[in-house]
Amino acid sequence: MNTGAFKLTIHMVSSLDGFIAKTDNSISWFETVDYYEQGITLTEQDTAAFLKSIDCYVMGYRTYEHALKLSESYGWVYGDVPVIVITHRNLPVNPQNVEFYSGDLNTLVDERLKSNYKNVWMAGGATLAKELILLKLADDIRLSIMPIILGEGKLFFDQIGQEQALHLKNVTAYKNGIVDLHYEIKHSKTDLIH
Amino acid sequence: MNTGAFKLTIHMVSSLDGFIAKTDNSISWFETVDYYEQGITLTEQDTAAFLKSIDCYVMGYRTYEHALKLSESYGWVYGDVPVIVITHRNLPVNPQNVEFYSGDLNTLVDERLKSNYKNVWMAGGATLAKELILLKLADDIRLSIMPIILGEGKLFFDQIGQEQALHLKNVTAYKNGIVDLHYEIKHSKTDLIH
Repeated sequence: MNTGAFKLTIHMVSSLDGFIAKTDNSISWFETVDYYEQGITLTEQDTAAFLKSIDCYVMGYRTYEHALKLSESYGWVYGDVPVIVITHRNLPVNPQNVEFYSGDLNTLVDERLKSNYKNVWMAGGATLAKELILLKLADDIRLSIMPIILGEGKLFFDQIGQEQALHLKNVTAYKNGIVDLHYEIKHSKTDLIH
Repeated sequence: MNTGAFKLTIHMVSSLDGFIAKTDNSISWFETVDYYEQGITLTEQDTAAFLKSIDCYVMGYRTYEHALKLSESYGWVYGDVPVIVITHRNLPVNPQNVEFYSGDLNTLVDERLKSNYKNVWMAGGATLAKELILLKLADDIRLSIMPIILGEGKLFFDQIGQEQALHLKNVTAYKNGIVDLHYEIKHSKTDLIH
């Protein structure tokens, strides 16, 4: 049982031109080389503490497939943290702690996530991000912008079709040229005043 | 005659989801209200000094039309700085210091801009930005990200169709929640090492 506020954070990695995946799904652009003098570097301890704070991952089916493919080379990046894959497909569950969910997203968040977890990360993709924002189920957005223009691919937020005001919470620039932007999703007019 | 290095900077204002204009061209989203405690505020002197450093603006026809429309309410934002509008149309020139150019972009930059100016800003739009990047005529990109998801509209860089590595030069977050990202466009492999 958790105490404290529940938070569902949408986390995406994108190019400067707003793409989260190339059309051919190649991922070499994630390894873009840059050096930003004023940037910070996370220690292994920082990273470990950060990852430890996440107690559940939610993702779409394609993001899961992608993570599975990556795991062949880099191992399963979500460790032993529970992963819930939103899909209507019925598939063998490969890694431990992975389960599939095919029901309503409101029910998932209100009945399943809120009673069990505190810090849930939505790790992709664009369609699920769009649905969570439109249903007002997401609290925060964290966008990691890579120092590259991709030129084509899958757009984050998938042309969501609705305006949504944001509140900037934090900006972090790293030595490798990645910029993390952290926003809170404003859910009412009163959120405008902080 | 200028001394020092010539620089052509592409400057765009976009939403977090990468749109630089709404489909209906409405601009109220530019007035998005946010408050970011850790952000900085520019003084009038800072702004004046910054604007003074720009010695020529280049823009596409729609951006010009947009600026003309805005000038009815806010005045002509480019002051007495020369403005070159890239267009094949033949139109009456309204404000002073505005001229139209319909020729080759390489010629514009190499023969016209480089010999007269030092700090040229490309103020929009997406199509011109795309052409300047593909022709390798642009040096820097400055993107001002507003704290809003627009959901639809015109994408910056207009699906440029080609990868382009960038070097992060600076990140500035403002009190009003706008984040400015400043990148150098890498034009060769050797640019990767700084």
